[in-house]
Amino acid sequence: MANSQYEYVKQFEQPDRLLPNTWIVIRIDGRGFTKFANKYRFEKPNDRRALELMNAAAKAVMTELPDITIAYGVSDEYSFVFHKTCSLFDRRSSKLVSTVVSTFTAYYVHFWPTYFPNSPLSPPLPSFDGRAVCYPSVENLLDYMSWRQVDCHINNLYNTTFWALIQQGGIGATEAEERLKGTLASDKNEILFSEFGINYNNEPEIYKKGSVVFRDYELVEPGTHNPTVEADSLAKPVQQSKSQAEKDKKRRSKARIVVEHVDIIKPDFWERRPWLLSNKPGKIPKEP
Amino acid sequence: MANSQYEYVKQFEQPDRLLPNTWIVIRIDGRGFTKFANKYRFEKPNDRRALELMNAAAKAVMTELPDITIAYGVSDEYSFVFHKTCSLFDRRSSKLVSTVVSTFTAYYVHFWPTYFPNSPLSPPLPSFDGRAVCYPSVENLLDYMSWRQVDCHINNLYNTTFWALIQQGGIGATEAEERLKGTLASDKNEILFSEFGINYNNEPEIYKKGSVVFRDYELVEPGTHNPTVEADSLAKPVQQSKSQAEKDKKRRSKARIVVEHVDIIKPDFWERRPWLLSNKPGKIPKEP
Amino acid sequence: MANSQYEYVKQFEQPDRLLPNTWIVIRIDGRGFTKFANKYRFEKPNDRRALELMNAAAKAVMTELPDITIAYGVSDEYSFVFHKTCSLFDRRSSKLVSTVVSTFTAYYVHFWPTYFPNSPLSPPLPSFDGRAVCYPSVENLLDYMSWRQVDCHINNLYNTTFWALIQQGGIGATEAEERLKGTLASDKNEILFSEFGINYNNEPEIYKKGSVVFRDYELVEPGTHNPTVEADSLAKPVQQSKSQAEKDKKRRSKARIVVEHVDIIKPDFWERRPWLLSNKPGKIPKEP
Amino acid sequence: MANSQYEYVKQFEQPDRLLPNTWIVIRIDGRGFTKFANKYRFEKPNDRRALELMNAAAKAVMTELPDITIAYGVSDEYSFVFHKTCSLFDRRSSKLVSTVVSTFTAYYVHFWPTYFPNSPLSPPLPSFDGRAVCYPSVENLLDYMSWRQVDCHINNLYNTTFWALIQQGGIGATEAEERLKGTLASDKNEILFSEFGINYNNEPEIYKKGSVVFRDYELVEPGTHNPTVEADSLAKPVQQSKSQAEKDKKRRSKARIVVEHVDIIKPDFWERRPWLLSNKPGKIPKEP
Repeated sequence: MANSQYEYVKQFEQPDRLLPNTWIVIRIDGRGFTKFANKYRFEKPNDRRALELMNAAAKAVMTELPDITIAYGVSDEYSFVFHKTCSLFDRRSSKLVSTVVSTFTAYYVHFWPTYFPNSPLSPPLPSFDGRAVCYPSVENLLDYMSWRQVDCHINNLYNTTFWALIQQGGIGATEAEERLKGTLASDKNEILFSEFGINYNNEPEIYKKGSVVFRDYELVEPGTHNPTVEADSLAKPVQQSKSQAEKDKKRRSKARIVVEHVDIIKPDFWERRPWLLSNKPGKIPKEP
Repeated sequence: MANSQYEYVKQFEQPDRLLPNTWIVIRIDGRGFTKFANKYRFEKPNDRRALELMNAAAKAVMTELPDITIAYGVSDEYSFVFHKTCSLFDRRSSKLVSTVVSTFTAYYVHFWPTYFPNSPLSPPLPSFDGRAVCYPSVENLLDYMSWRQVDCHINNLYNTTFWALIQQGGIGATEAEERLKGTLASDKNEILFSEFGINYNNEPEIYKKGSVVFRDYELVEPGTHNPTVEADSLAKPVQQSKSQAEKDKKRRSKARIVVEHVDIIKPDFWERRPWLLSNKPGKIPKEP
Repeated sequence: MANSQYEYVKQFEQPDRLLPNTWIVIRIDGRGFTKFANKYRFEKPNDRRALELMNAAAKAVMTELPDITIAYGVSDEYSFVFHKTCSLFDRRSSKLVSTVVSTFTAYYVHFWPTYFPNSPLSPPLPSFDGRAVCYPSVENLLDYMSWRQVDCHINNLYNTTFWALIQQGGIGATEAEERLKGTLASDKNEILFSEFGINYNNEPEIYKKGSVVFRDYELVEPGTHNPTVEADSLAKPVQQSKSQAEKDKKRRSKARIVVEHVDIIKPDFWERRPWLLSNKPGKIPKEP
Repeated sequence: MANSQYEYVKQFEQPDRLLPNTWIVIRIDGRGFTKFANKYRFEKPNDRRALELMNAAAKAVMTELPDITIAYGVSDEYSFVFHKTCSLFDRRSSKLVSTVVSTFTAYYVHFWPTYFPNSPLSPPLPSFDGRAVCYPSVENLLDYMSWRQVDCHINNLYNTTFWALIQQGGIGATEAEERLKGTLASDKNEILFSEFGINYNNEPEIYKKGSVVFRDYELVEPGTHNPTVEADSLAKPVQQSKSQAEKDKKRRSKARIVVEHVDIIKPDFWERRPWLLSNKPGKIPKEP
């Protein structure tokens, strides 16, 4: 039974290679997570276990896919950044998106019992969708990252105030929404402070800043690197010697993947970690 | 902290809506499953538990995504077919692919202990990649399904003979490969029968035919429907009344999702199950 | 001076092959033709010379690109249909669109003096833009053609009435527009007839129906062909013998390309000219 | 006759917006120009009239489409560069490609009698195809331009030698080809000089360098600008005041469009003309 008469169907596959020399961001989002969060009684406005589970899954994704240089997570979404020189899967969009989403989901389900030991998962199971977006310049990429972190801040300030009004103020959801309509950040800070004694600045960084996942090398002195310019100089397909590529790979695998809750909008974060934009692994920090 | 200065980055998302009025096939494949199968000592040439786990995950995907009309699985791959009138997620490719892949992965990991109770999963976890392909006509779609089932047959006959030579014939992998080079189907059948007393026709259907997953309604008499013509008449966006849509949805959710190991190359399979191509739910069979 | 260090830039070209087994429609539109029509004092509501120039250019395009099976023109737009089995330029969208647009433009400029002998062209010259759209089924394609012809009718009835009000009724453009706001087809017919003695039915067919361009073979008896079904059976890449392909090519080149102003919405047009959908050349009519 | 039942066909149009913040290059090529050149007896290896006709058409395209910042032509091809901030036609690929191709073709046909007064055009007419390619960084763009100019040089040196061998050396085409197989640039220079007394360096610049078309402003001092850095800083959609945009437009329209035959591979060309990469019009040079 030869297969040749049917093989023509392969021609219907359309190529989907992402434009070379652009930063690839793959953002994944929890599907129907409002309902999912209710089912498992996630705490409001933030459930630390749920966030730490997200972070654990993201760390695992970065371990399995060393081409990812940095990831940023907030709530039920995570953005994974592939360096603009990345040639993984020949940059095919479906392949990149589906691999990231699948790996993330596998770890999310696998690690669930560690973070929710008393709430075993039952169908419908948690799942994520994803998409790929290309950013041509470092500035575009950093603006993307800033966009997500500002969004985290805006949503968290809103949610913190909203749930304080409900949980501590004892009013209903509609009323709380009404109360917050049109308020500025300063108004919300004021409500939190004067009505509930909450100083928003003292809220946990993981809630205010989200989670940044990256390989940890020795920080460099501020002002000694201009990572944007260094990255922009990498416009051509990388012509690395095999031994250099091997060395880089080894160093990368030795680096600890860390999760931090820090500002990624100001340039300082990027200047002190030039490897994030240059894609050249830094120095492994000495063990303390 | 307004977010407006960064929001321009949203403009970099490119639309990826699949062409209307085409059949959408999403095929997923296990990533690195040769290595994975070795790690968990999958039986050769076929591991029934592994196949049944794949089928259980596929059934769960179809339960969560009723827009899928039929799925076909073989080895570590599965193809999910969305009807050409489908408008789920506005037919966005990334969204469809990532949702299918994520849901499948979630169930694969979740059901693992049921099928492999003595081999708990450990990193690196199983994962899948996926892609979407559009087929304009019923004939193209059926040719795609035939392509996969013929492939299943060709590979299974080869693998059955290959592993018989090794496991029962006691020769090495290279030698077995050498032995099979250039052989026809008839030669392999002959080797199996004369050397190992295996009648290939008596091998389990699940290995020879793969697995077909679909909603089960009452079969119709052969010759009473021409599902290809019926499907081709659905060229325009469906204008269903709301109550009809509700009725269809209810019927679909009542239908049992079954896994069968049958021939889908001959027209009979499709003629007796006109709902697969027409997308109109059939009659729920009476309980026996 | 070797070129190798720069050749990597070729990798940035993205493939744009249109989905196989779909009808390709390339529609071109005059750029800024309102202004252009004023500059050369086109007659209102229709300028016959301008339409005939469009038709002459379309005929020339079809002569140079025998893969086009039919074209339909109205006002300053033209739609060219490539058969779904077409493999010209490997179905690359840019190549198809740019070739059609360029060839059309070349003839439009070249033939201009024939149709406007007393108005030599001067910069800015007339130009056209274009796009490709794929239609999976015959029904979609015929609906596209109907869409354009109904649009022709609607616009022509409006314009005929609008310009009658201005040219014969002596009112201004704003007033005429106001007068026609919200009117039905029957209202416009009534205005034309009772106020200006114009029976719209007697208007020239070229204005009411637009222009259909195709290769002319002997008409077949209605009811003897079902071209839709015949076309749908051509789902696979055509495997024609070389001699058959040569014969078809010769017949096609012998066929006269005609421009007619007829109804293409009713099935009769297509049933009597089965070659349009089957892509098999018909019989060359005997010379009278 | 309402059109609503057919309007669904509009949904089949697929968006084709090019990635923001990337340089758009539209390259057009003469279709079947070997044959065309023979028909009109173009001189070998270069026909100056044909090249000047190409240049005249390119200048006209740039006049009609002020969004084009620079163009480069060689033989029967021309590359038009749109600045990375360009938002013309919402960056739709088909629209950009077809407009450039159509406008170029219109002028090519229109200007033909000026350059070939004794050879009136007859069908088949000259036509061009085109494609769009995006380049994310200035370096990629300059490498593209260098690629074309190096190609010009390599081809011209080859063709000059090839035709000298035939026209002056009196040998046949096959023999000439054989003779040149495997030769280096230095070998060809040597053949030209020792056998035909031709010093390749003295060949006309238009043949050796191709043609560069751009708006002419006052040159700036070398070393005072770093246009690459200036261009890379334009990553966001331009937020220009209306009056500034008007001023820029006026200046641009005042600038003379020039055709030069100069080196665009060395940085000097770009450093002295910073407006090409910054998209900010320079100073209009004083009339001499």
